[in-house]
Amino acid sequence: MAAAASTNSFLVGNNTQIPSSKPKSTSQSLLHLTKPNTLNLAGKKTKPVSVRCVSSTPQVQDGAARSSTTGSQDRVFNFAAGPATLPENVLLKAQADLYNWRGSGMSVMEMSHRGKEFLSIIQKAESDLRQLLEIPSEYSVLFLQGGATTQFAALPLNLCKPNDTVDFVVTGSWGDKAVKEAKKYCKTSVVWSGKADKYTKVPPFDELEQSVDAKYLHICANETIHGVEFKEYPVVRNPDGFLVADMSSNFCSKPVDVSKFGVIYGGAQKNVGPSGVTIVIIRKDLIGDAQEITPVMLDYKIHDENSSLYNTPPCFGIYMCGLVFEDLLEQGGLREVERKNQMKADLLYNAIEESRGFFRCPVEKSVRSLMNVPFTLEKSELESEFIKEAAKEGMVQLKGHRSVGGMRASIYNAMPLAGVEKLVAFMKDFQAKHA
Amino acid sequence: MAAAASTNSFLVGNNTQIPSSKPKSTSQSLLHLTKPNTLNLAGKKTKPVSVRCVSSTPQVQDGAARSSTTGSQDRVFNFAAGPATLPENVLLKAQADLYNWRGSGMSVMEMSHRGKEFLSIIQKAESDLRQLLEIPSEYSVLFLQGGATTQFAALPLNLCKPNDTVDFVVTGSWGDKAVKEAKKYCKTSVVWSGKADKYTKVPPFDELEQSVDAKYLHICANETIHGVEFKEYPVVRNPDGFLVADMSSNFCSKPVDVSKFGVIYGGAQKNVGPSGVTIVIIRKDLIGDAQEITPVMLDYKIHDENSSLYNTPPCFGIYMCGLVFEDLLEQGGLREVERKNQMKADLLYNAIEESRGFFRCPVEKSVRSLMNVPFTLEKSELESEFIKEAAKEGMVQLKGHRSVGGMRASIYNAMPLAGVEKLVAFMKDFQAKHA
Repeated sequence: MAAAASTNSFLVGNNTQIPSSKPKSTSQSLLHLTKPNTLNLAGKKTKPVSVRCVSSTPQVQDGAARSSTTGSQDRVFNFAAGPATLPENVLLKAQADLYNWRGSGMSVMEMSHRGKEFLSIIQKAESDLRQLLEIPSEYSVLFLQGGATTQFAALPLNLCKPNDTVDFVVTGSWGDKAVKEAKKYCKTSVVWSGKADKYTKVPPFDELEQSVDAKYLHICANETIHGVEFKEYPVVRNPDGFLVADMSSNFCSKPVDVSKFGVIYGGAQKNVGPSGVTIVIIRKDLIGDAQEITPVMLDYKIHDENSSLYNTPPCFGIYMCGLVFEDLLEQGGLREVERKNQMKADLLYNAIEESRGFFRCPVEKSVRSLMNVPFTLEKSELESEFIKEAAKEGMVQLKGHRSVGGMRASIYNAMPLAGVEKLVAFMKDFQAKHA
Repeated sequence: MAAAASTNSFLVGNNTQIPSSKPKSTSQSLLHLTKPNTLNLAGKKTKPVSVRCVSSTPQVQDGAARSSTTGSQDRVFNFAAGPATLPENVLLKAQADLYNWRGSGMSVMEMSHRGKEFLSIIQKAESDLRQLLEIPSEYSVLFLQGGATTQFAALPLNLCKPNDTVDFVVTGSWGDKAVKEAKKYCKTSVVWSGKADKYTKVPPFDELEQSVDAKYLHICANETIHGVEFKEYPVVRNPDGFLVADMSSNFCSKPVDVSKFGVIYGGAQKNVGPSGVTIVIIRKDLIGDAQEITPVMLDYKIHDENSSLYNTPPCFGIYMCGLVFEDLLEQGGLREVERKNQMKADLLYNAIEESRGFFRCPVEKSVRSLMNVPFTLEKSELESEFIKEAAKEGMVQLKGHRSVGGMRASIYNAMPLAGVEKLVAFMKDFQAKHA
């Protein structure tokens, strides 16, 4: 495990402080050069130290919170649903190289997307992603913009004619949005919806009344808002049809048999990078027959022919995704990543179950998401206190989506086990105080 | 000038080296804490120093170029057409705050786009941009994705019905691409094209045979590839029509009277940020009548109603744009920025003129771009040597666009005067050697 072996190289002197000649500077930023303890470290605990760099950024943002302490204890545990927490070692690498990428004399943000430096970055990102997901050679990997919401239009525009039918299994809000957008470009058939059950289930696949001639069957593999995750995938009834999955919020969280899908797509901002990058993995024979009204930027053919460089791609975001892919490989690949995710999710769901109803998760046990854990309090009037008190202890963004209420803990790949442990301990304390 | 006053706070000890316990580390990155000399410093020269931080990033990129020296002399002068050079102080601020933004415990890349931290960032970015361009209140500012190329479709989809006509003045490749995309969604009329003259001119406006009923007149205010820039703007013949301008490559390079336009749009990656952010400034009364086939992500109404937060925006890119807007305001605003850009452009164009034909710029003098300077060598066989030798001296990305050949120096806002001075000195030396 290369990552574990390299831990010590981040350990430097003790609180090397670089003095400023402007003590009144309004922005005091910490360049953390400590590699903190995360799941992928091989047990050896290291003492966090930091280099404090004081830069002058006059009035960058007035009144923002500022911490007076140094060291990695400044990091919060960020349970946001996305954009979400990123691996600390990835952030530290990006920080170290931000001003001058590997001696190129440029930031990655300044590089021509057609220059050899950026080409090496995007090509390695694709190659590492292919290795992670074992993507067969008959699939293209596209790095696009606009989020999954743009793909809700791009998919029918590329894969259907106006009279074609697309089947949808709707297990949450995102699947529902995908239907609404597709209606503009094809016929849609919702073969199952979990709406009546407030999106807490995945249907038995043999009950699905799929259209005989459906061009494809669309699912959202993990519903970020409702915490419902497919553990297996339905087989498409039409022998010429194929499965399309929005994997925005569980992309690269576990191994996936890509060959079962025609298209896998997702925004990067949950598990693999910052917002602004959308990844599409598409079987090559499905490319090239877009409707005439398709905007050129939504046409997979253009991006495939140009290796995602038809126009200027979101270079820095792709670079960040590449760093995350490297990190996932260094951790041992997606089987190991899934094992860690399962451990974290078990810890949290067990805590909910063992609370004897004090905490509740509405989702059917067999399809509970490893990524997004929605839960409520029996005494719902305590929920805002729960969220507030957790924030005071450095666990932030626990508020449930406005459409659902309650709480939601998003525990993506980059959430350390320590974060879930701390949350579970807090939940037990909170229950003891309020039971 | 706050920026100048704060210079010294970046000046720290001398080459504070942080030792690594892994001397074989494959990635040695330099955290430059020096604020280098740039145009906006008030004359006081400072000695560059740097902190060298060695981080372990196993096999980040095999075989990439690496410099063994430290300090700001590592920076190249990057003449790329976009993504392009960014202000050094902006990069240093972003670097200092990358791991933990102002004590929030999070990177900007990890922040929920609906959290108070990011809301403060996007709101300040918009407010500063409004101040810079003096944008009237009856205009909306949208932060989108997909580049100007996505807008080539979004504009007619939002502003036209299929039978409406749009007029185009085509002064280069980008204007030409805009026509081709618009043809999918409306009728197009090219009222003037510079193609026969290899895109070296802007027409006299009184010669334009505009359509009586054109919904709008589209121009590309600065053609990045051909180096042709509008110095004034045509008046639209149809009293109900309006002017639409792609300002991707001269956005915020000079003051612009926004009230003369219905829509101003552009990718951020030339003058105001990294790639992945597209800014649209649109008169509010033009919003809300999109064609039914418009993908929701291309509908200005959705983005306007949701303050650019309908789905997850490119948060980090918007943050970077915000830092650039602050920097431009600190420099004294766009009048001062234009003065500097004019000075740089004059220096370079004068060098070309004074070379007695050794260097040539094909563009008509009155419409030469302040941003992109294409030039050729009389002895064209020397061009590749010119580009190679310049790169050896730290001036990179001078190759002309593949469709034009020769050289192109993009000298956006963030290109320091020193970069142009160095290029001009190199040109004189090169001529002396080869005349």
